[in-house]
Amino acid sequence: MTDTPVQADRGAYVRSLGIEVVEWREGFARITMPIQPVFLNRSGVLHGGLIAILLDTVGGYAGTWCSRPGHVRHAVTVSMTTHFTGQSKAGLLSAVGRHRGGGRNIFFSSAEVLGEDGAMLGFGDGVYRYRKGSHDVAGVPVEEGAAGGLS
Amino acid sequence: MTDTPVQADRGAYVRSLGIEVVEWREGFARITMPIQPVFLNRSGVLHGGLIAILLDTVGGYAGTWCSRPGHVRHAVTVSMTTHFTGQSKAGLLSAVGRHRGGGRNIFFSSAEVLGEDGAMLGFGDGVYRYRKGSHDVAGVPVEEGAAGGLS
Amino acid sequence: MTDTPVQADRGAYVRSLGIEVVEWREGFARITMPIQPVFLNRSGVLHGGLIAILLDTVGGYAGTWCSRPGHVRHAVTVSMTTHFTGQSKAGLLSAVGRHRGGGRNIFFSSAEVLGEDGAMLGFGDGVYRYRKGSHDVAGVPVEEGAAGGLS
Amino acid sequence: MTDTPVQADRGAYVRSLGIEVVEWREGFARITMPIQPVFLNRSGVLHGGLIAILLDTVGGYAGTWCSRPGHVRHAVTVSMTTHFTGQSKAGLLSAVGRHRGGGRNIFFSSAEVLGEDGAMLGFGDGVYRYRKGSHDVAGVPVEEGAAGGLS
Repeated sequence: MTDTPVQADRGAYVRSLGIEVVEWREGFARITMPIQPVFLNRSGVLHGGLIAILLDTVGGYAGTWCSRPGHVRHAVTVSMTTHFTGQSKAGLLSAVGRHRGGGRNIFFSSAEVLGEDGAMLGFGDGVYRYRKGSHDVAGVPVEEGAAGGLS
Repeated sequence: MTDTPVQADRGAYVRSLGIEVVEWREGFARITMPIQPVFLNRSGVLHGGLIAILLDTVGGYAGTWCSRPGHVRHAVTVSMTTHFTGQSKAGLLSAVGRHRGGGRNIFFSSAEVLGEDGAMLGFGDGVYRYRKGSHDVAGVPVEEGAAGGLS
Repeated sequence: MTDTPVQADRGAYVRSLGIEVVEWREGFARITMPIQPVFLNRSGVLHGGLIAILLDTVGGYAGTWCSRPGHVRHAVTVSMTTHFTGQSKAGLLSAVGRHRGGGRNIFFSSAEVLGEDGAMLGFGDGVYRYRKGSHDVAGVPVEEGAAGGLS
Repeated sequence: MTDTPVQADRGAYVRSLGIEVVEWREGFARITMPIQPVFLNRSGVLHGGLIAILLDTVGGYAGTWCSRPGHVRHAVTVSMTTHFTGQSKAGLLSAVGRHRGGGRNIFFSSAEVLGEDGAMLGFGDGVYRYRKGSHDVAGVPVEEGAAGGLS
């Protein structure tokens, strides 16, 4: 399962992709990622796997904003869908995620990825499961070490 | 959209991930990918985005095996689903894809990703669209340059 | 495959469910359906299959509005996702569909189902394929007999 | 959400469709449904909504077989996907579901629908959530009244 990001504390892989969190509040998140040459496929356009990663990541953020300093919320991705609607070759991508429903255990998000020109490159939905204590917006204390639980 | 791989001619991104094609015939494909430390998330387990990439890639292969030397078949991913069923930290992953149905324009594949111990880490389905001429197992001539059309 | 509805000319099954088209324009549709006692499951709440039917139907409408009298647009459902977010026992359901992207062959829609109190009961996305000539908003002539091509 | 069937105790809606359970064991189920004229759409082929219902139903069964007489297992559908691969006009449909993974709270199933001639009409996956106590194959006691919890 994919551990969703927590606060600005992104995991190594997400960080290696250049993903930045630019907007985050209860039920909503926006992230950005610059297209790097290595992200292109043989046709010279962005590999679809990167679109899936952005959807997964921002959809997880959308359900795990935490209101309390020094605390975080953890979730794992259960299932996700990715629809490919456009192509891009360069520029700064942005992805927006919105919490759509759910309860104490599970939440649903919808997300979309936009190219630098605003055209939609992909969209999809995710089903996520909260880790213990993380359904509450106040979250759980950040712990050293295992602290993680994020992409 | 994601251009699916063609023959052993993988795109830069797929190649950078260490993906290898180890079995390929009409309607079936098997690929492998070693887990690299950079693929781990903060919890120290494989990032789910890599599982989505493997499913997308091997599902595309499953519908584009080409019987004729010097020829290839091209397809793009329209839509895909990813279900996360397990976790892994290291070792050689394998992914298997099977053609499930479709016709001249569209095909469906199912795929799964297995850890080195054989446990299933994820599974899902993909909807792909053939590029012109690629529905036929005899494919189209490899062209220099744009030849590509692969991940 | 599911043939999507065309104009107000709903198929027998859709009609038998009491589905009505209440709003329809390029890229958007809204339908309603009253919950009938036979639609309930043993727990006394709406069977999820009806939610899937509403999403499929309204998502198809969203891509097949036709501007020309005496003409229609035909599409078939290729693939769809359904997420269940709430329950309902009675009242008039409404479902809204929006065209999200695509081209001459394929289009994508997103849809949601709301209970009489406005709470979201389910949402999802669909991938549809236009039949010959139907990508154009002017549609194709209604033909007697086979005219159909709708749910 | 869709309550999945429990033992042979199908809900009113599932019963009204003529669905029968013909094979059921831990992790596997097979059901049948005769195509009725009212199930056809305007093109004279089976409405896709019925395929979604069969996938949802048999996938739920696949995770809720109960080993103990007088006991049942309850689950609700969280999310599902439906791919349409063929058409049918008449005859006895069969649908097969297989448990694919999961744990105490959530399980995943894959399912497919076959026409009377054995051709695949559709396939897809489901994410289900166990109700309290139902993750165990020994189930919970059947209770009068609300007992249900099935489609």
